[in-house]
Parts: sequence; structure tokens; C-alpha cells
Amino acid sequence: MTPSNENELTQAVLERLSSAKDPRFAQIMQSLITHLHAFIREVDLQPDEWMNSIEFLTAVGQTCTDKRQEFILLSDTLGASMMVVMLDQARAKSRAALGANAATEATEATVQGPYYWAGAPDLPLGANIAEGVLGEPTFYSGRITDTAGQPLQGALLDIWSGDGEGNYDMQLEGSEMAARARIRTDAQGRYWYWSIRPTAYPVPVDGPVGRMLEGMGRHPNRPGHIHMMVSAPGYVPVTTHLFVANSPYIDSDAVFGVRPSLIVEYESHPAGTAADGRMLDVPYWSAHYDFCLETQAT
Amino acid sequence: MTPSNENELTQAVLERLSSAKDPRFAQIMQSLITHLHAFIREVDLQPDEWMNSIEFLTAVGQTCTDKRQEFILLSDTLGASMMVVMLDQARAKSRAALGANAATEATEATVQGPYYWAGAPDLPLGANIAEGVLGEPTFYSGRITDTAGQPLQGALLDIWSGDGEGNYDMQLEGSEMAARARIRTDAQGRYWYWSIRPTAYPVPVDGPVGRMLEGMGRHPNRPGHIHMMVSAPGYVPVTTHLFVANSPYIDSDAVFGVRPSLIVEYESHPAGTAADGRMLDVPYWSAHYDFCLETQAT
Repeated sequence: MTPSNENELTQAVLERLSSAKDPRFAQIMQSLITHLHAFIREVDLQPDEWMNSIEFLTAVGQTCTDKRQEFILLSDTLGASMMVVMLDQARAKSRAALGANAATEATEATVQGPYYWAGAPDLPLGANIAEGVLGEPTFYSGRITDTAGQPLQGALLDIWSGDGEGNYDMQLEGSEMAARARIRTDAQGRYWYWSIRPTAYPVPVDGPVGRMLEGMGRHPNRPGHIHMMVSAPGYVPVTTHLFVANSPYIDSDAVFGVRPSLIVEYESHPAGTAADGRMLDVPYWSAHYDFCLETQAT
Repeated sequence: MTPSNENELTQAVLERLSSAKDPRFAQIMQSLITHLHAFIREVDLQPDEWMNSIEFLTAVGQTCTDKRQEFILLSDTLGASMMVVMLDQARAKSRAALGANAATEATEATVQGPYYWAGAPDLPLGANIAEGVLGEPTFYSGRITDTAGQPLQGALLDIWSGDGEGNYDMQLEGSEMAARARIRTDAQGRYWYWSIRPTAYPVPVDGPVGRMLEGMGRHPNRPGHIHMMVSAPGYVPVTTHLFVANSPYIDSDAVFGVRPSLIVEYESHPAGTAADGRMLDVPYWSAHYDFCLETQAT
């Protein structure tokens, strides 16, 4: 068919999917093409605007390196990543064998972000995972349970964090792993470790996404947060953050990752002996959070 | 606002546009974000599919060079470029001062494609613009008029074409301009020149767009066509092709550029004296087409 108007054009492109072998790929492309065409018609996209879009996307691709993923940043700042996270967790929830004794909701997920680095060291309970890292010391503690409230022994917290100035080890030239660790719960499902109190920081703004944010009149900042993947055999793993209550930008995270259930009050303490017996010669903070994992559907 | 579900997330991203300075940019981003979120929800995009999309778009950006524009190819093969062309021409038409004496429709536009090269040589009427280029000789002729049928003297045809094997000069290593020229109409609005009969050819398939087409079960070919930008002072310029009637893929152009009004019968002739007096010692073709330009709105 040779399309002679805009409606027929969309139809012609969709019909060209009839020989796709993978029905899921065809489904995704059908929806993508429909929305792409609808978007272009809705805004009556002009040729110079189309060319600007081509040049923008090209620049996003060419800004990517082995240490920087500008398309993930684009997806994050447009809320697309968070949408995928929300849908994934909703799916896991609806698949889970929720017993009548479900006492508590599973911990909410948020974006993974670009700074996960597999292979963090296994450290014992109570370790300072941010040894030598700039920032105010913080005692983190809590429990990991299932949705019935039963403690999970040996559940894994795979933790990563920027330093007290918002920089991740990966961003610093020639650096080694820092402020990362894998910690496992004890027989009562408890965890505790030391790290720093994370601070707000901007996403990278020296590339095309930075220019887009500026055009949108948006700031590029994320509120202070610490990342973790929480997992245990037989449970749905969750990739999430804890956010520092009252951190700047807590109401306007540049990547839309904040969820009210993930905001934690950091309590301030004078120098002295902390809850785990560690002696602090400077003031420090403590943050308490209980994680909860959904049973994996069988 | 901290979104707690998918609807609120879309709303939160849209609200972040409230400080955009350029209302047109805000309008485009609002529509884009709305459709992007709707697409992700509609197909319930899974994390691994999202990651595949990120990697695909990154590869498209990184395939672009100064001689190759993979994002334009992506836009072309998804029908997005042709949609922009159709909308642009519809806009020009509605703006045009259409007199009651409009006798004929303006020539329809199609995609520009990636092979336009500004600065083609000015050649006289009757020139062979494809001197030394592989392919079967073809005599092109016709008129350029306004929509009232009045001939336009000195109207410009800026022509480019692949060779008889579907290769453009730009694609051949270290090559110079070939099969390109700027030709102007005479006092009666007539034009005539020699070139070759273009053949079908595939778009580049060794990159991510090629893999996408394969996944969609689509062939990558374009029917034989010759490109031109037609312009005259005071008239809306048009970027278009002439397509060879009965060329392979005429009903399934990989970039959706074919329009019935642009299909031309190529008439075959034995060796001998052509209409312009040129002696041909091989068989040749002739193609006749009258272009028509819309008056520019004042």
C-alpha cells in the first residue's frame, strides 16, 4: 500500500510488522510506532525541530562511554526509568503468593542509577564500609523480614553510596572501590554497618541531557541517598535507595526516584559511644530502616 | 510532589515543565513525555527490554559519523521522517495564497534522505549530469509551473541520484561528486537533462537499524528513484523524488517515501537520435515529469 495521507502512513508502517517473528517485539514496535506518529502529529513537528531532535539523540549516543550512560540519564530525567521500576514491582507483587498473614508491604523499589559496580567486598556486620571516604559518619541498622514479618537470616544488602560531597568512586579518575560493601543479616534478620551521611548532588550536566534540563527550566539535583540491592533466596530482590529526610531537593529529585516510604530520619548524636559500642570522637548520625521482601512466585 | 503510583509519576514529570522559558519547547516535551510514559505502560515494558532499548539507542548514536546518520535512518524506517514531510507540506498548502485559478496541485514532497550534498555544479539544459556514472542513460524532461499552470522561468532543479547499482558518490571511498547538478528552466519553464535510470537499493543494514528491520521481518530496500529539490523565488520549495514505475519494492519502500503522484513511466528507446538531438549508440530511456510549485504565502 502506498499511503496518501498521514493516517494511511501510520497504517502502512504498522502493516510492515506482519512478518515479525517474535510477537512480543512486534507488540512493542506497534505501540512505539503508534505513539511516535501520534506525538509528531500532535505537536505538528516542523522539519527544523525534527532535525534538532535527530542531532540531540545523536549527541546523547555519542556522549556515552564505558563510564557514562547518557541515554540512561535521559530515561531517568524523563521519568521513564522510574516508570519501568514501578511497573516491574507491581508485576512482582501481583505474581507473589501473598498469604493471608501478610503483615507488611514489601520495600518499594527505585531507580538503579548508573553507579552500581558488581563485586563489592563482603564485610562483616558492624564494619565501616566508607573507611577513608569524606563525609559525616552514620550508623545504619534495621532488619530484613518477609511480608509476614519473619526475619530473614543471611539476607544480602549490596550497598553503594557517593561520598559526603556527592561523588561516587567511579566518577573519580583512577579510583578504587569505595563506600561499597555486601553485608549479610544475622540469625534475627538484623543488619548494622557504618557509612557516611549522603549529600545532594547534581546529575552530569555537561552533556545534551544537561542542556535539555536547562531548556525545561529544571534543576539537575538529586537529594541525598544511599543505594542498596536487597535479596535473599526465594524472595523477590529489590533495588532501592534510602533518602535523607529534609535533604535539599527531596521534593524535586531530578530522576523522580523519591518514594515517601524510602525517606529516613537521620538522628544526630554527639561524639561518644555508639549503639554498637564503637567510640566516635566526632558527632555522628544514625539511620534505622527495616526492609521487607516479597516471596518469589513459584 | 512525590509520586506514589504510575499516574502520579507522569503528572510529576509534566509539572516539572512549569518553568520552561520557551512555550514551544514545553509543548513538545509535554507531548513527548505523555506518549513515552503511555508507551511504557501500554506494553508493560520489562527491565531487560528497557535495557535493550537503552543499548539500541546508544548503538544508533555511536554508528553515526560525518558520512552516516543512523538516527535519520531510524526515523526514516519508522515512517517518522515521512510524517514530518507530509505535515510540512500540508502546512505550506494551507498557508499558500491559493487563487481561484488554481489549475493543478503542487508537486508532492518526500523524504530528503541522507545523500544530499550542497554545492552541486550548475549545468546547462541538456547536459548529461551523470557523465562517467554506471547506469542506463535516461533523457529527463518536463516543465515547472505554478499552480495556475503558468511556466516558471529560471526555476531551479537541484538533482542527485545514485548510480545504476544504487550507490551514491558519498558512499564510495574517496569519491568526488557524481550524478548531481543544478539545472534551470528556460523561458517556457522547460527543463531537460540526461542522467541514468536509477535502480532499487538497500539502506545500510550493517548497523542497529539493520538489525531492527530484520527483527521486524522487513526488507531494507528502496525502489529506484532520483532526488530533486525544486525551487523558484516566491514559491514554496519542494524536496522530492521521481520513482521508476514497476521498480522492485515500489509498493514497499523501506522508508515509506513513495507517493502515487511521483511514480513515472520510463519509456525505452533503441539506440539512435534522442528528442534533443543527442546520438545514442546504446538503448536508452526517457522520463517526463511536470513539477508544480505553490505560491509562497505573503
